[in-house]
Amino acid sequence: MRAAPTQEEVRRHNLGTLLRYIHIHGATSRAELTTRLGLNRSTIGALTADLTAAGLVTEKKEAPLRTGRAGRPSLVVRPESSRVYAYSLTIEVDSLHAARIGLGGRILDRREAPRPRGMQVGDAVQPLASFVHEMRADVPPGSRYVGAGLAIAGMVRRADGMVRLAPTIGWVDEPVGDALVEEIGDVGPMFVANIADVSAMVEHTRGAAAGRDNVIYLYGDVGVGAGIIVGGQRITGHGGYGGEVGHMVVNPDGQPCSCGSRGCWETEIGEYPLLRLAGRGDRSGREAVLAVVDAAMRGDWVAQQAVRQVGEWLGLGVGNLVNIFNPEAVIFGGTLRDVYLVAAAQIRSRLNEVALPACRDEIRLRTPELGRDAALIGAAELAFERLLADPLG
Amino acid sequence: MRAAPTQEEVRRHNLGTLLRYIHIHGATSRAELTTRLGLNRSTIGALTADLTAAGLVTEKKEAPLRTGRAGRPSLVVRPESSRVYAYSLTIEVDSLHAARIGLGGRILDRREAPRPRGMQVGDAVQPLASFVHEMRADVPPGSRYVGAGLAIAGMVRRADGMVRLAPTIGWVDEPVGDALVEEIGDVGPMFVANIADVSAMVEHTRGAAAGRDNVIYLYGDVGVGAGIIVGGQRITGHGGYGGEVGHMVVNPDGQPCSCGSRGCWETEIGEYPLLRLAGRGDRSGREAVLAVVDAAMRGDWVAQQAVRQVGEWLGLGVGNLVNIFNPEAVIFGGTLRDVYLVAAAQIRSRLNEVALPACRDEIRLRTPELGRDAALIGAAELAFERLLADPLG
Repeated sequence: MRAAPTQEEVRRHNLGTLLRYIHIHGATSRAELTTRLGLNRSTIGALTADLTAAGLVTEKKEAPLRTGRAGRPSLVVRPESSRVYAYSLTIEVDSLHAARIGLGGRILDRREAPRPRGMQVGDAVQPLASFVHEMRADVPPGSRYVGAGLAIAGMVRRADGMVRLAPTIGWVDEPVGDALVEEIGDVGPMFVANIADVSAMVEHTRGAAAGRDNVIYLYGDVGVGAGIIVGGQRITGHGGYGGEVGHMVVNPDGQPCSCGSRGCWETEIGEYPLLRLAGRGDRSGREAVLAVVDAAMRGDWVAQQAVRQVGEWLGLGVGNLVNIFNPEAVIFGGTLRDVYLVAAAQIRSRLNEVALPACRDEIRLRTPELGRDAALIGAAELAFERLLADPLG
Repeated sequence: MRAAPTQEEVRRHNLGTLLRYIHIHGATSRAELTTRLGLNRSTIGALTADLTAAGLVTEKKEAPLRTGRAGRPSLVVRPESSRVYAYSLTIEVDSLHAARIGLGGRILDRREAPRPRGMQVGDAVQPLASFVHEMRADVPPGSRYVGAGLAIAGMVRRADGMVRLAPTIGWVDEPVGDALVEEIGDVGPMFVANIADVSAMVEHTRGAAAGRDNVIYLYGDVGVGAGIIVGGQRITGHGGYGGEVGHMVVNPDGQPCSCGSRGCWETEIGEYPLLRLAGRGDRSGREAVLAVVDAAMRGDWVAQQAVRQVGEWLGLGVGNLVNIFNPEAVIFGGTLRDVYLVAAAQIRSRLNEVALPACRDEIRLRTPELGRDAALIGAAELAFERLLADPLG
């Protein structure tokens, strides 16, 4: 139930909608904004003037964009990517990343360090904080900071960003965001989310699933998680822990899983089974997985058999998810991207056996368009969200 | 992007919200409506007067409802359940049902017939149409008809209600709704949906999961489907075919499934495996399943072993869904209700092994509050939806 919104509420809503459009789609002519947003020219002009005055966008007369036709110059609105920024941090299984991301999703600066397996929380917080300090020193004068986001390969409690469990990282109930805020200093609140969830949102808004409202983004490293978009919304369940598809039991007689169960999907498609099948059980890490994929592409028979077997299980589990969600697109992210590239035939074939025709008949299997950057851009989105909800607030 | 809504648009929205509240919660005092809907007394009075004039609700001074305290009489608003009605039809595996349902979800009249397995579409349409004709003859003068809904144990295309596949019923690509409209005559459009989906919505709004926004409703007969509520919304995927959890492969070395795959969840928890395990593979149907459950409750060892084994697989699959959805409640409907009642211990134990603690720590396992009526009430909701969206439209 609601009372009628005031003119001011409508204006703020429209400012947010316009800024979000520019943030997602980049430079756009006023004429195109008029069409896309269904508002008249004078309203678009007034909104753009407000956003320009707030230093969030710029306007310039330019030759027509995107049309390829000659024509008279049009006013083009661009996000102030180099001035308005967020800090973005990610903790992956084998690496730590930090970036400064401009409005519009542009990576302005970035840092990266390896993360040895078994590294404790405190030991990850310090290098990430140092990266922020380094990047901060280079921020041009007059820039506007909007906030910070962290994406992590673990289960994040929605209410407060607590990392409940990061089995492949080895942490339980760690307030990683709070620790980072304390170490960095003067950074404001740190928004925390699961890496598959934020990657899914970015591929949904700007990447391989742009325009598709029902999407499953699989993220693989040691384990497997999913970011799930249903009806255009990211779904994470009651406490924020949904999407743990890696712990869907697909082989009850299979291997024990780190979670204490047996035959979880990730015991068949994660890093360890792939390396073991390839006769490389003594190795670990992303590079070792990519080496198996490379060997398979070069014709190494053992590596090929390993990748094919993983592909069979990957197709089976994706088939299960397709029956449950009837999605338009499944995106293979993390190391599953590379597995998909060499095992697409096995995956598709097994998927077709498992998924009902009605559930799969419009499905597209895709690799990420933004690659590993999706996680960094997605973590920044957590911070940009407040700005986009109320640009002048 | 939007322009400011007019006063008239706000009024229509508020009329819909008030009527929906009365439709779901039944008789409610004006005082309580004021609190629940956050509008002042005079606005509630004006809206109620409009709905009364339209013949959708009645108002009467009554002693206070629900408070148990003495107090001065209050104006109580009730849905016009006996005047405003929809037709509701369901096609289950073993039975056909028809009802006339009043605003507020009250069953005013009902009919039922057995459905022999293998019955063709045309043969189901005729008895259902006859039921409607019979009920129509008894409709009191001055009643207001709002529409008709059909819930079916099959996959329904959202765009047009086409039944794409009803494997346990044996139909493929049948326009059942259209056939019913033609046979009944003068009944308006027939809204069609999956039986698990509509049952889930009803248990979510009025039943075992009222007030819970993340809910999985399992519906079992020969096969198993799910109605899934995420963030308060029913999710059915791109084409409307999601929720086919019965075809989640959980035992790759298991039995062939009617869908062409192998080891689907329903090959372990559906009607056939339960009857086979109980040594009654020569029987079929809901009554045969309930007889096994009864025998198990009475101490029949073979029946107990059968129910326990099914319970193990039921717990495993629910654990998978809990990891994927992190729901607040799982409801066991159809014949799974009865299996749950005797195998709750096995189900809970296996669920706890499979589901990650964070995903399951607030989960409630429940039986439906509305039983089999949920499907009939839910099918009627499809028809009431238009009225609730714009009561005076």
